[in-house]
Amino acid sequence: MSYNLLKGKKGIIFGALDERSIAWITALRCHEEGAQIVLTNAPVAMRMGEINKLAEKISAPVIPCDVTSNEDMQNLIAKSMEHFGGSFDFVLHSVGMSLNMRKGKSYTEIDYGFNQKTLDISATSLHRLLATCWKNDALNEWGSVVALTYIAAQRVFPDYSEMADAKALLESITRSFGYHYALKKKVRVNTISQSPTRTTAGSGVKGFDGFISYAEKMSPLGNADAEACANYVASLFSDLTKYVTMQNLFHDGGFSTTGVTQSVIEQMEK
Amino acid sequence: MSYNLLKGKKGIIFGALDERSIAWITALRCHEEGAQIVLTNAPVAMRMGEINKLAEKISAPVIPCDVTSNEDMQNLIAKSMEHFGGSFDFVLHSVGMSLNMRKGKSYTEIDYGFNQKTLDISATSLHRLLATCWKNDALNEWGSVVALTYIAAQRVFPDYSEMADAKALLESITRSFGYHYALKKKVRVNTISQSPTRTTAGSGVKGFDGFISYAEKMSPLGNADAEACANYVASLFSDLTKYVTMQNLFHDGGFSTTGVTQSVIEQMEK
Amino acid sequence: MSYNLLKGKKGIIFGALDERSIAWITALRCHEEGAQIVLTNAPVAMRMGEINKLAEKISAPVIPCDVTSNEDMQNLIAKSMEHFGGSFDFVLHSVGMSLNMRKGKSYTEIDYGFNQKTLDISATSLHRLLATCWKNDALNEWGSVVALTYIAAQRVFPDYSEMADAKALLESITRSFGYHYALKKKVRVNTISQSPTRTTAGSGVKGFDGFISYAEKMSPLGNADAEACANYVASLFSDLTKYVTMQNLFHDGGFSTTGVTQSVIEQMEK
Amino acid sequence: MSYNLLKGKKGIIFGALDERSIAWITALRCHEEGAQIVLTNAPVAMRMGEINKLAEKISAPVIPCDVTSNEDMQNLIAKSMEHFGGSFDFVLHSVGMSLNMRKGKSYTEIDYGFNQKTLDISATSLHRLLATCWKNDALNEWGSVVALTYIAAQRVFPDYSEMADAKALLESITRSFGYHYALKKKVRVNTISQSPTRTTAGSGVKGFDGFISYAEKMSPLGNADAEACANYVASLFSDLTKYVTMQNLFHDGGFSTTGVTQSVIEQMEK
Repeated sequence: MSYNLLKGKKGIIFGALDERSIAWITALRCHEEGAQIVLTNAPVAMRMGEINKLAEKISAPVIPCDVTSNEDMQNLIAKSMEHFGGSFDFVLHSVGMSLNMRKGKSYTEIDYGFNQKTLDISATSLHRLLATCWKNDALNEWGSVVALTYIAAQRVFPDYSEMADAKALLESITRSFGYHYALKKKVRVNTISQSPTRTTAGSGVKGFDGFISYAEKMSPLGNADAEACANYVASLFSDLTKYVTMQNLFHDGGFSTTGVTQSVIEQMEK
Repeated sequence: MSYNLLKGKKGIIFGALDERSIAWITALRCHEEGAQIVLTNAPVAMRMGEINKLAEKISAPVIPCDVTSNEDMQNLIAKSMEHFGGSFDFVLHSVGMSLNMRKGKSYTEIDYGFNQKTLDISATSLHRLLATCWKNDALNEWGSVVALTYIAAQRVFPDYSEMADAKALLESITRSFGYHYALKKKVRVNTISQSPTRTTAGSGVKGFDGFISYAEKMSPLGNADAEACANYVASLFSDLTKYVTMQNLFHDGGFSTTGVTQSVIEQMEK
Repeated sequence: MSYNLLKGKKGIIFGALDERSIAWITALRCHEEGAQIVLTNAPVAMRMGEINKLAEKISAPVIPCDVTSNEDMQNLIAKSMEHFGGSFDFVLHSVGMSLNMRKGKSYTEIDYGFNQKTLDISATSLHRLLATCWKNDALNEWGSVVALTYIAAQRVFPDYSEMADAKALLESITRSFGYHYALKKKVRVNTISQSPTRTTAGSGVKGFDGFISYAEKMSPLGNADAEACANYVASLFSDLTKYVTMQNLFHDGGFSTTGVTQSVIEQMEK
Repeated sequence: MSYNLLKGKKGIIFGALDERSIAWITALRCHEEGAQIVLTNAPVAMRMGEINKLAEKISAPVIPCDVTSNEDMQNLIAKSMEHFGGSFDFVLHSVGMSLNMRKGKSYTEIDYGFNQKTLDISATSLHRLLATCWKNDALNEWGSVVALTYIAAQRVFPDYSEMADAKALLESITRSFGYHYALKKKVRVNTISQSPTRTTAGSGVKGFDGFISYAEKMSPLGNADAEACANYVASLFSDLTKYVTMQNLFHDGGFSTTGVTQSVIEQMEK
């Protein structure tokens, strides 16, 4: 299925680890819709994953980028502009990692050095990306930047730990930088708050199974999967959504506005 | 326990049916804190309940009022002013009723005549109350009006049915009228979004038990009870909260900002 | 420009008065994208407007419907199904009217009979529409219903008067009915909270000019116009947004997440 | 005026620089209400300010604390427990500083080293405080922690720059830690989102004057001042608000729910 929705558009996609990644599926989907893509990921993630397979399929260069490094980010943007022959139209930021969770540190006992790194990778990286685009005048007018987030930024999901705080910071950066980029160049910046998704990254979260099944029962349409998310991202990169900016957009089958479902109540009565 | 927090203040309390009512307990609490009270309720509710017992305890007159009648409302405000010897300081609006729920009509099949009545009793009544105070200049400067609401106005709780819509309307009226009353006379108007509470009215809601136990499990502090709510209302009637207006204030033990708890996840895994 | 985004889809569009109407422009846009349309409006609005011109352009039947009448709504749905040869895929609800504003009644002095009518036309009509679709099994799986709303449902814009309350009610009905329709048939229901737009209806609002220029100055991308809104609606009717439901989606150039702009601050300093 | 609202309660107050500080005025107010206080501030702020005058007035020890140091925080909590003879009841976190703003770096060009420090001082410090209390079991059951924040966490105020992101992070930490502390010891944690206030710290923000006068015009009750804030904090430290937790509470004269006022519209038409 293709509508040629992104015909002539060009953009960068962060975070395609393997074929279960939302970023992977989004890259395929945007390619189908006519876009040219540059892929990027952290050097370490690239070694673990299979990004080259994807790159071949969609004829995209892969440019490694440690999102906590100003130099790497500058290199990514410069190389992408070289590849595209100028500025481009969209970016997907699908980046997040919690060092304290990796190290098994509970939220009440986090290490602040790790926490600083978590915030830098998962949230400040979006600022660095946008500031680097800004400095290089890398985004076309009416360009569109989307970052993936999670509702833990609004409500506590205990196993999500410090990533909740990182996502809240990410969403704030989206608004703050979105303001400036709208005024300067009509670029829009939004987050998609996605259902929990069975990606390789997501599966690493403690208690993920109980949690994803709770979300499924609490979402009138069920959890949104990665394919649906890719479609939604494509709509936000397209010209159909030009006046949507500085928003956090729930793509969650109705989870966020559901207080309880019959199915959860029944489970409670067991 | 008394702080004399409401010493010299006077106000009207709607909705005290019996000793489990939030309004009943709030009336007692405000009396303890030094306030003079006028009690009111619908004529039919007065026949069913025991408001006279309460009236005796706190030496308060009872003035019946059908909240859907402009005349009754005018009579209530006029008589209250007569009783108080002039204008007064606070009002608690604890009024709500769903005709479609009473008649067993599900949300997708509501009767619109009943619905109109539900909205009138549960939401428009707040407008009528405020407009009648406005017209009679019945509220003192820095007066405080509180209406009780429920989080179903933001998220769907299916058994709450059309009352969710009524509460959303109530909260909007709070903001809309709150704007005008702040400008005119520095009167503040807020809603308290209270935990589900085992009152005689609450107990009538279908599936209330499964529901209240879910809310208990989803609230890090547990459900707020009627006594705690009465304390919170007293703080909002006091001079400690003069610049809080046009807000919906969650009094719910943290339910509203909790996405899931360990205890719910465990129940889900059963 | 056409992506064939709505190829094979069918739907009803309420509220096309004249060529400045959002509904009018949306009908054209959906037609371009390959959809078949049924147009409807209130009998009185049809007499005032020019809906037949539009109907010719897009080969759509016009079926009059007073949205406060169960019979008219049933007739609309039945006739539409007849026309389409069965169930359909989308509906745009662009309906609103304030009787108190028409009569020049200020918010603090509204007439409750008029108010009841305002709520019925502007909000309950969405329930009536959805309930009639439900009863007739008129919407296909993954169907999409969009209603137009305004941010006055969250924050006070004094000249918007009782329409703010109507929009809050409308948004609540969106969530409440959206829950049930998602479970039953995967139908999604959302509101778009649109920038103030210079339509014939919008222009009637008192103080509209000062207000639209304030919104323009407060929106980093500027106010979204009717054409942009039509594009956004098309994306929500398409298969790209299947898991978005029970949401209120701001289409406002960033107004809703902007606290103040440099341009407003400068105006303040004059 | 005293209600003895905090009789027998003990707590720590961060951030009293001089007599215009909200923290200063809150410390006085809590003392009036019967509380025992420990004062703290950053060593550098203590040199610049006049905290010792306040300390004398309310017979409070002053314990310096660099909020970015685990050791300083441990020392503060340990010394406070020593002073109080055990655990205590409340804390006011009134701490914030933007290095990039100090250095005149605009939001689109922030230095990430400075930014990391801004987040650490203004937001992570609340986590450090709560984690240190947690580890030392320093807070009594039903204890109350309040942090001061600003609506820039939800909407962009361009001159507030990176502090907006810091406040969003602060509010998220409030929810995240509030969840755990509620479960463990019924401690509640909230933020107050205060009107812009003419403190010595606030006055340093670029464009503060235009901004505070805009806020005044946009708040139906006018901007809340420091005295009113102190009253509100006292109510949140008291037993009247035991079930309010994990909330962001607007104390802003209605600013947050006001879309526009007549007074701003008139200014726009100039």
